[in-house]
Amino acid sequence: MIGIFDSGIGGLTVVRALMEHLPGYDIIYFGDTARTPYGSKSPKTVIGYSLENTDFLFKKGAKIVITACNTASSVAMESMTERFDMPIFEVITPAVECSIKTSKKLRVGVIGTRATINSGIYEKKIHRMNSKVKVYSVACPLLVPLVEEGWFKKPETTMIVKKYLHPLKTRQIDTLILGCTHYPHLKNIIQKKIGKGVNIIDSSVAVAGKVKDFFKKHPEVCNQISKKGEYRFFVSDITEQLEKTAKALLKKNVLLEEVKI
Amino acid sequence: MIGIFDSGIGGLTVVRALMEHLPGYDIIYFGDTARTPYGSKSPKTVIGYSLENTDFLFKKGAKIVITACNTASSVAMESMTERFDMPIFEVITPAVECSIKTSKKLRVGVIGTRATINSGIYEKKIHRMNSKVKVYSVACPLLVPLVEEGWFKKPETTMIVKKYLHPLKTRQIDTLILGCTHYPHLKNIIQKKIGKGVNIIDSSVAVAGKVKDFFKKHPEVCNQISKKGEYRFFVSDITEQLEKTAKALLKKNVLLEEVKI
Repeated sequence: MIGIFDSGIGGLTVVRALMEHLPGYDIIYFGDTARTPYGSKSPKTVIGYSLENTDFLFKKGAKIVITACNTASSVAMESMTERFDMPIFEVITPAVECSIKTSKKLRVGVIGTRATINSGIYEKKIHRMNSKVKVYSVACPLLVPLVEEGWFKKPETTMIVKKYLHPLKTRQIDTLILGCTHYPHLKNIIQKKIGKGVNIIDSSVAVAGKVKDFFKKHPEVCNQISKKGEYRFFVSDITEQLEKTAKALLKKNVLLEEVKI
Repeated sequence: MIGIFDSGIGGLTVVRALMEHLPGYDIIYFGDTARTPYGSKSPKTVIGYSLENTDFLFKKGAKIVITACNTASSVAMESMTERFDMPIFEVITPAVECSIKTSKKLRVGVIGTRATINSGIYEKKIHRMNSKVKVYSVACPLLVPLVEEGWFKKPETTMIVKKYLHPLKTRQIDTLILGCTHYPHLKNIIQKKIGKGVNIIDSSVAVAGKVKDFFKKHPEVCNQISKKGEYRFFVSDITEQLEKTAKALLKKNVLLEEVKI
């Protein structure tokens, strides 16, 4: 199976992208809803949680693990690859590669949680690939709760998005990375407020492409992954609201199974 | 010592009220910042966390424990009093008693997290004391993140508060219970939007009064509590933002100590 974890259910956007780009591959998902969100917590705590989540997925039979959470991708990758001798993917590098390919003006914006933006990871990775790119980052901590409340189209959400994007707008970026799996749900408002000319990069789609490429180069890993089109969704806490949101995100009925990590 | 726990540092409003009403009493605080917030999680998960937090405080030498978190007070009290043979206080009953004393029209509003409001606890407790009181409740899940971001005076916050309070305004309440320890920080906006004639009840002040009365009636418990004016603040996760907010809440320097629960 392909293992995926996220701090909550925002990472279902990655599941959706995988279903589209790698149809039929079995997927096991873990959403750490009992300890969500990660974005405002310390690196040490996020690393601890990420190691536990990854361990759970490998023990359940995953052959590769995708860290769908940007915060965990930002701070925990080194600890994860040190601990586990299996392929682990994160959502940052694929988005960075896309941004460098598409930005003509070499002016890239990044939005994410406070932990992701404070880590400076996007800037570091972009500069490692092309030191000429100007990177402008803004932490948008209120967007995750707004998405979780389903306030996709409320005027308050539009105002808050506008306020957050203002500093990027003045920087005349031509590419914007959505550095959080929740943000694709606000893509329309974000596109409207940042301007039509700005290319928006959704890391869930970017990572699905990356995994597809990896399977082409590593058939020995790809062959180990079962392909019965089975999906299992584990979470560390279930609420009614969660079931509703999961259904809305995947546009199908989702059976959530509770597990203690 | 007096033990206090909360899902995060919102419960420091209770510490502040105790410092004022019971000066000199030693206090040990635990904020579960690694697993915050509780308000959107299931009762089962919140009960598990509350038992662990209470156990930690009693083991550290607390002689009474105050559950400063409204969500935990709503769903976990029965399990806590069953498990522990020591005095445990919650923040709901004191606020309910105040509301019944002050409401002349017998029309009371309650705002809180989704878990608190869904539990129906305020309504049940109010009706147990006076079945004639009309209770109107609204879940306000976005107020906690707005407070945690320090957006106390932004126009977006005012708009969101206005939207949440609208159904209560049409009900012509004369008393409003702030059923979440974060909300006192928005008291000015809430007062403005609900109207000057509405009496706002802050549960942190109400619970401090309750503990003071208990000590008068139970000198044998009161005498066990050390009174060196010492305060210790434990949290399950430390970030820079947290230290800033804690300092702002208590209006003094706070040494946060990290502990794994």
